[in-house]
Amino acid sequence: MSEEAYPTSLGTSDADSIRLLGHDLAGDLMGKVGFGELAFWLLAGRRPVAGEVRVFEAVLVALADHGFTPTAIAARLTYLSAPDSLQGALAAGLLGGGSRFLGVTEDTGLFLHEALSAVDGPLPTDDAGWDALALPLVQRTRKAGRYLPGLGHPVHKVQDPRTPRLVAICAEEGLRGPHLRLYEAIGRVHPQVLGRTLPLNGAGVCGAALADLGLPDDLLRGVALLAPAARLLGELAEERLRPVAMDMYLGIDRNAVEVPPAEGEIDG
Amino acid sequence: MSEEAYPTSLGTSDADSIRLLGHDLAGDLMGKVGFGELAFWLLAGRRPVAGEVRVFEAVLVALADHGFTPTAIAARLTYLSAPDSLQGALAAGLLGGGSRFLGVTEDTGLFLHEALSAVDGPLPTDDAGWDALALPLVQRTRKAGRYLPGLGHPVHKVQDPRTPRLVAICAEEGLRGPHLRLYEAIGRVHPQVLGRTLPLNGAGVCGAALADLGLPDDLLRGVALLAPAARLLGELAEERLRPVAMDMYLGIDRNAVEVPPAEGEIDG
Amino acid sequence: MSEEAYPTSLGTSDADSIRLLGHDLAGDLMGKVGFGELAFWLLAGRRPVAGEVRVFEAVLVALADHGFTPTAIAARLTYLSAPDSLQGALAAGLLGGGSRFLGVTEDTGLFLHEALSAVDGPLPTDDAGWDALALPLVQRTRKAGRYLPGLGHPVHKVQDPRTPRLVAICAEEGLRGPHLRLYEAIGRVHPQVLGRTLPLNGAGVCGAALADLGLPDDLLRGVALLAPAARLLGELAEERLRPVAMDMYLGIDRNAVEVPPAEGEIDG
Amino acid sequence: MSEEAYPTSLGTSDADSIRLLGHDLAGDLMGKVGFGELAFWLLAGRRPVAGEVRVFEAVLVALADHGFTPTAIAARLTYLSAPDSLQGALAAGLLGGGSRFLGVTEDTGLFLHEALSAVDGPLPTDDAGWDALALPLVQRTRKAGRYLPGLGHPVHKVQDPRTPRLVAICAEEGLRGPHLRLYEAIGRVHPQVLGRTLPLNGAGVCGAALADLGLPDDLLRGVALLAPAARLLGELAEERLRPVAMDMYLGIDRNAVEVPPAEGEIDG
Repeated sequence: MSEEAYPTSLGTSDADSIRLLGHDLAGDLMGKVGFGELAFWLLAGRRPVAGEVRVFEAVLVALADHGFTPTAIAARLTYLSAPDSLQGALAAGLLGGGSRFLGVTEDTGLFLHEALSAVDGPLPTDDAGWDALALPLVQRTRKAGRYLPGLGHPVHKVQDPRTPRLVAICAEEGLRGPHLRLYEAIGRVHPQVLGRTLPLNGAGVCGAALADLGLPDDLLRGVALLAPAARLLGELAEERLRPVAMDMYLGIDRNAVEVPPAEGEIDG
Repeated sequence: MSEEAYPTSLGTSDADSIRLLGHDLAGDLMGKVGFGELAFWLLAGRRPVAGEVRVFEAVLVALADHGFTPTAIAARLTYLSAPDSLQGALAAGLLGGGSRFLGVTEDTGLFLHEALSAVDGPLPTDDAGWDALALPLVQRTRKAGRYLPGLGHPVHKVQDPRTPRLVAICAEEGLRGPHLRLYEAIGRVHPQVLGRTLPLNGAGVCGAALADLGLPDDLLRGVALLAPAARLLGELAEERLRPVAMDMYLGIDRNAVEVPPAEGEIDG
Repeated sequence: MSEEAYPTSLGTSDADSIRLLGHDLAGDLMGKVGFGELAFWLLAGRRPVAGEVRVFEAVLVALADHGFTPTAIAARLTYLSAPDSLQGALAAGLLGGGSRFLGVTEDTGLFLHEALSAVDGPLPTDDAGWDALALPLVQRTRKAGRYLPGLGHPVHKVQDPRTPRLVAICAEEGLRGPHLRLYEAIGRVHPQVLGRTLPLNGAGVCGAALADLGLPDDLLRGVALLAPAARLLGELAEERLRPVAMDMYLGIDRNAVEVPPAEGEIDG
Repeated sequence: MSEEAYPTSLGTSDADSIRLLGHDLAGDLMGKVGFGELAFWLLAGRRPVAGEVRVFEAVLVALADHGFTPTAIAARLTYLSAPDSLQGALAAGLLGGGSRFLGVTEDTGLFLHEALSAVDGPLPTDDAGWDALALPLVQRTRKAGRYLPGLGHPVHKVQDPRTPRLVAICAEEGLRGPHLRLYEAIGRVHPQVLGRTLPLNGAGVCGAALADLGLPDDLLRGVALLAPAARLLGELAEERLRPVAMDMYLGIDRNAVEVPPAEGEIDG
């Protein structure tokens, strides 16, 4: 292959046909493949079966985050400033999809995957076995000063309602795999190590379920970006009909208070 | 309502529950609502019926654009430079969703909607009636020097395979409405005005179908951004496994030729 | 030139040297060219003289917008969500640089440029002459229902302090050219057409001054983006030391009120 | 302070005045403060003296990266797709400002700062002393398998011309401080550890010089983003007059080759 050739298996087109993922887009895919199914296929490089689609779409629904999140506000304010560029407002919102707010899904999947990779021998087959695996993992993680991803939530302090629901859906589809089992075990054993009980959060359970679907660790953030893309478009649709961004901006701006520079601004 | 209240119908949450679109997210939506269905709901503010979901998802599949588009290349190059920020690479790709490459869907929907709004009396009921409506519309548009959105394609010079397929899906679902009928009529009558035959392109037929679904004109671009979001994540997933961005960059950079400034750079 | 050659006059490099704008970057430019000067050079394709640099930098200072603008808030909220991606927070802020908040500079420059291009014969030489040119322009613009760019300000209702200052600087440097003269005349004559007196705003006077510097109309927005780039970095530097984004987010989120979908959400 | 107050020392405005950084914007800053000076002030929270401005602007010129970098190509392709949104094209280019291409400046500054912070006792006063400090640092870094930031360049394999020039400018201004001295020492001693001689690159020397200016480590990337902002606007100005993005896109797209999915796409 010469240096100018750029290989891809996603798709190409010629005068008469469009190919996507090795199939004829018009004849084989349109009207036959759902959008969630297509997204999974594009991300994983393989076509999911029906149960996998259901779990994947449940994850996407779960991650269509709720309330005026920082990303929702950023998207609305950008739309206020540049209403001629819907793509800019969407992009501004997605740019908040970083380590703090969207990283939990990715972090949890990676954490579980690493823990499972280190298991020497067969995986447990019952809850007691999973608990026996989870306990030293939680202990080691805490001792190393690392955080346990997927635990705790600022609002849902006792239980995140998405967690038991997603576990149930995975079980219905025969997709409650080792990542999810280990994650559930962490939920059972962590109180004896941490001394308090934290809920397994929705972002974390989504990471566990996606890892059980075989999605590569470093693309879980991709899933965690796709759901907000739909949500953010909904925010912009609502902003168009019932604008609140100007009030948000004015509410902040009129409370600005000029102060001297913060201490520590001149350091090295 | 005081000035500090920010109304929204998208969703809120409290300690025990998460509400999205007026429903309980965990109990009513997860596992029951597909991702395409959710996206439609968020954009349109109403839940679609099954036939609408099928058309909507067919549109999203059709718009998962093909080949190394400028947006796909921009996303891959950004991922090359900043592999630690998947969200940045996705955003960079989406920012190409502007007037030239993604605007056709929006322009076509708007054009058809305006034309239909100007009709005084009942709409046509057969092809001859639609042709009689389309012909003067094409003539007036051409006379005004405006372009006819949704006509022509750089690659699919005779027929865009997505167009007849989407029309068929809409017909199957009883959703071949007035926007689509008028668009098809433009496809039949334009040769006698323009003196040449252009294909009805995929982006245009998607705009017509979305307008028939009742999506607001100015949010059609939103749909045209959601499909690429999934596609771009697929590009980044592939770039991760089979990187080509470095070769693309080097292929361009080594062919850079230093020349004097272009004429006209100093103007007012 | 073969199809693979990509011409540029900005710069290239080889093993021993780096060229920028036709000069040796290390030997000729570093330590000798200021950043504002370099930015002008890159945008205009020609090196500015000292007076032009002073006016250009005064414009950049004037446009380093003030207070918690929507773009500043969007950047801070994005940094809150994704602190690992400074570039994403900067980009999110810049994406607000669209038609409404940053477009005035561009619109004013373009408006003045078009008006001057339409003048048949020599330009006026005194205020009375400029007023005679401005009056019918304002009348025609108003009659056509178009807005007059660069007039009015939500906060500075009588005078925007940047306007007389920039006019004075331009005059000092011998760069108070026709765009600025016409803009000043609009400031004098518009009350007799509009029936009220609006201030010439800072964004508008910057557009007029930039047009007098010979910058192309469609790149004035580029200047209006460069100044905020520095300002937004300042916002992020301050956010790092004295964080307020979490409070901004919480202040909005706790005032979210769930309401039914807005009327009109289901339209075509 | 109530929860609704948002403190800032950057600036506020009222009907008659605009304040920026504690000064009257129109009266005290416009026409008196250069753009590089303002940017330093915003980033560092203190006004730089003249020598600091010269070093800072030399850094910005040095970092106005050269050639068709991935970020330049991404910006041009985005402008091709969405010419109506200059801010989007700029943002797309800046989003490449991540770990790989722009991170060297930040990494080098941080590396040097950490090394200096660990010194117990007075800093060296001559080259021999700095070499004695640098040698074990290079040895420890290599032994730990960490990379040495700021060493090596894909094009400038022997010497990056920016490095000696920036050192000379810093020396002229009395600002050749400990970070720079240590960086220079690394340049002298690393061959005896690595077994080969690499150049001190331009991005690294900029990081060292900025650290000597007292800019906080985690904002060095901010400086490394500001310079490209100007450069990218220059790219877009050139693209407007002498477009090459379409050729770049076509050159890549016509060399797309459809292949089966990559091995390893289905993993966990």
